[in-house]
Amino acid sequence: MALFTGYAKTLSLSAWLFRILFPSPPVLPRMTYHLHYWPTIQGRGEFVRLALEEAGAPYVDVARGDPDDGGGEAALMADIGAHDHPSFAPPYLVDGDRVIGQTANILLHLGLRHGLAPRAEAGRLWVNQLQLTIADLVAEAHDVHHPVGMGLYYEDQKDEAARRAKEFRAQRIGKYLGWYETVLEKAPKGGWLTGEDLTYADLSLFQAVEGLAYAFPHAMKRLAPKIERVIAVRDAVAKRPNIAAYLKSDRRIAFSTEGIFRRYPELDPA
Amino acid sequence: MALFTGYAKTLSLSAWLFRILFPSPPVLPRMTYHLHYWPTIQGRGEFVRLALEEAGAPYVDVARGDPDDGGGEAALMADIGAHDHPSFAPPYLVDGDRVIGQTANILLHLGLRHGLAPRAEAGRLWVNQLQLTIADLVAEAHDVHHPVGMGLYYEDQKDEAARRAKEFRAQRIGKYLGWYETVLEKAPKGGWLTGEDLTYADLSLFQAVEGLAYAFPHAMKRLAPKIERVIAVRDAVAKRPNIAAYLKSDRRIAFSTEGIFRRYPELDPA
Repeated sequence: MALFTGYAKTLSLSAWLFRILFPSPPVLPRMTYHLHYWPTIQGRGEFVRLALEEAGAPYVDVARGDPDDGGGEAALMADIGAHDHPSFAPPYLVDGDRVIGQTANILLHLGLRHGLAPRAEAGRLWVNQLQLTIADLVAEAHDVHHPVGMGLYYEDQKDEAARRAKEFRAQRIGKYLGWYETVLEKAPKGGWLTGEDLTYADLSLFQAVEGLAYAFPHAMKRLAPKIERVIAVRDAVAKRPNIAAYLKSDRRIAFSTEGIFRRYPELDPA
Repeated sequence: MALFTGYAKTLSLSAWLFRILFPSPPVLPRMTYHLHYWPTIQGRGEFVRLALEEAGAPYVDVARGDPDDGGGEAALMADIGAHDHPSFAPPYLVDGDRVIGQTANILLHLGLRHGLAPRAEAGRLWVNQLQLTIADLVAEAHDVHHPVGMGLYYEDQKDEAARRAKEFRAQRIGKYLGWYETVLEKAPKGGWLTGEDLTYADLSLFQAVEGLAYAFPHAMKRLAPKIERVIAVRDAVAKRPNIAAYLKSDRRIAFSTEGIFRRYPELDPA
């Protein structure tokens, strides 16, 4: 009863009425999430890891576990098709009886549960739009080193990759990050993509900037003066206590020439 | 009052209780949607057009209108950046004071409003996942004819396109449509991707199959026996009264070598 009174004090009558008319979705009991993703790369799974880490949510990165305990890459391949709602590709997240695939879709689910997205529908759709545009950028960043076939090695498509990288460096990176700069410029005060509150889209923008800076350090250095607000989001995310701890931990896999963002010096001349 | 009684008769006590505890989002007054997309191609905008047409929703395809009435491509380019929530690229939909970009995000919005997605959150996420996988397929289908640069003409990357098309025909089309076949096989009875009720993901699967059949007729003919359930969805969508009427109307733009799905005979040998 004391708790109830304390809670009531913080809400005006109209806020109470609003809650009765439009209650929040029921909050599920907190369980350990199971994230299924390739164990040796950041890849698309990293966007999910960052959200889970920022939220301080308990999760198991299944394929990074010991094969004797049901972990490892073989377990991932065996598990992915074994659900009523199979995923086309990793990452996918198991949350109780829900199996959710597609990075942006997983984040839509997590955002609502962990305060990483606005509660109101219009705000959630906007954050989803910001995330889907990151997804487009990520797909293009991958295509730079695999323009003519994802089943082929980079070494078998180096000339084509050089052609594609040229356009990506000269036009696409600036177009994408310039768009986020405009979004930040138009946003309400606060410094995050939606203004005052951090959302998972800010975490994803951090990851995109980190990946691009790893793979295209020269192009990013030239672009930096034009995207100061974007860089500020990157810096602010890196300083979040949970994210800072994560980045220093061995749970953070290093960038490499196996992932989406790859540093091939010939694709980013000085 | 008569209306109220009639409504009450159709609901059990527990259903009433459920509605009180978890009411549906408020239904907005029906307004005319404004769809902003390139005026001469199906492209990504077509997934939105199909949902609007199936729903019988009033909409204006803005850039297809007369420039004297605020239509045309120049109007699209002027409008896209003029919003607080600008879109990175068309399509975007204006619904009252909401401006929503990214195809899958627009459909998430429309699905809930027009009964083209389940009301329950888990079901909506699953349909979103089905849609996002179509989006991945669409991006790859586009990359087939533009592997080394979207700013270049196809004629400047024909050799690279031929390499990429080979893998796309031999592996990727079958992997994607085979996955939808599995989804249909695992779904509850009813023939649609989620079972009994058509969702916007079924409309999008129709469009993907139509596009692939236009661009890769030989590859699709070979694949057809392995994806009978997918073909059945295509056929069932084509027979929906609103869709059938739309496909016969001049609102349906023809496939061409300007859009995402392009027929270049050299990319699909017999």
